[in-house]
Amino acid sequence: MARAVAGPEIERLVQLLARVPGLGPRSARRAALQLIKKRDSLMAPLAGAMQEVLGKIETCPVCGNLDVRSPCLVCADPTRDPTLIVVVADVSDLWALERAGAMNARYHVLGGTLSPLDGIGPDELNMASLAGRVRQPTAGGGTVAEVLLALPATVDGQTTAHYVTELLRETGVKVTRLAHGVPVGGELDYLDEGTLAAAIRARTAL
Amino acid sequence: MARAVAGPEIERLVQLLARVPGLGPRSARRAALQLIKKRDSLMAPLAGAMQEVLGKIETCPVCGNLDVRSPCLVCADPTRDPTLIVVVADVSDLWALERAGAMNARYHVLGGTLSPLDGIGPDELNMASLAGRVRQPTAGGGTVAEVLLALPATVDGQTTAHYVTELLRETGVKVTRLAHGVPVGGELDYLDEGTLAAAIRARTAL
Repeated sequence: MARAVAGPEIERLVQLLARVPGLGPRSARRAALQLIKKRDSLMAPLAGAMQEVLGKIETCPVCGNLDVRSPCLVCADPTRDPTLIVVVADVSDLWALERAGAMNARYHVLGGTLSPLDGIGPDELNMASLAGRVRQPTAGGGTVAEVLLALPATVDGQTTAHYVTELLRETGVKVTRLAHGVPVGGELDYLDEGTLAAAIRARTAL
Repeated sequence: MARAVAGPEIERLVQLLARVPGLGPRSARRAALQLIKKRDSLMAPLAGAMQEVLGKIETCPVCGNLDVRSPCLVCADPTRDPTLIVVVADVSDLWALERAGAMNARYHVLGGTLSPLDGIGPDELNMASLAGRVRQPTAGGGTVAEVLLALPATVDGQTTAHYVTELLRETGVKVTRLAHGVPVGGELDYLDEGTLAAAIRARTAL
């Protein structure tokens, strides 16, 4: 802006909004103005919702999920299968898997992937408690039957998967990973060779 | 989401963020998660900035601009030319004109355009005080020399411009409007006929 047309408080609001993922400097300005116009119906409730989450948010001591209660809603849910633990790198992966709605499992959020170049080793991640969770009897008195590694299909993700597999070897638990293959709705023509090769190797009978 | 993976407070935050212009339901979820992760460096300052703006924001009694002080920063600025008043439909137009940085004027924000179909007449807009502002001596003891109508080039905008012109006729002030023409950087091939015809009529000598 050539020069200020509003007080520094508004400029500060614009600058903070510009740091929200999905908003850039220009859309932050539009968003700020709309928030100011809808101050009673949108900005006040939004600021209130933020304050409420800020006051309550916690990292779940059991699985590492972020929630406003502890243990989190997933860990506290008695209808979830306690014998399947899905290991994810990030809370966003947990949210994505739940959107798919294909499982009724518990989770373990590592908080990232191993990345020696970035100085992220096992101690920087939520790994120490995983073997303990697997060894512990489940709520129903049974045992954890399977650990599904739902980690990114990147080099760091694969390194992490390998490390977790080794970590769990002595527990004897079955460790699985997500299938590689053609994305549903995907055109073969646009797929990379690695994915195509993996899909061919893992072909299934009709 | 198939079912809740976090408490209703977080779900509410997502739903409110989805109503911010520029964010949709999906990016609101991503934004919420990033805000939660960066709660100390981003969410807390953002909530604070919102609360601060909420507590201070006012409609300027002179020009109708939105600001955290009253009169607003534009009206309170002694270096702005008091003899030129730019009439705009919306605060966002004021911000846009200031970004262009081409004027050093005062503003008058109508808060919309006349729209009989939507039940918006002169009484619903900030029009009553405009003629008074024009008649009043300026801060420097002079008089308002020009009112520039920077209104949308839509039917409602043109209706509004016509109405304001009539409203100001008895004051004798010079009323101008923005030029129509080819946008800077615009391809003629993509321009509508109305704009091209206007640009031809208003052609200037080189």
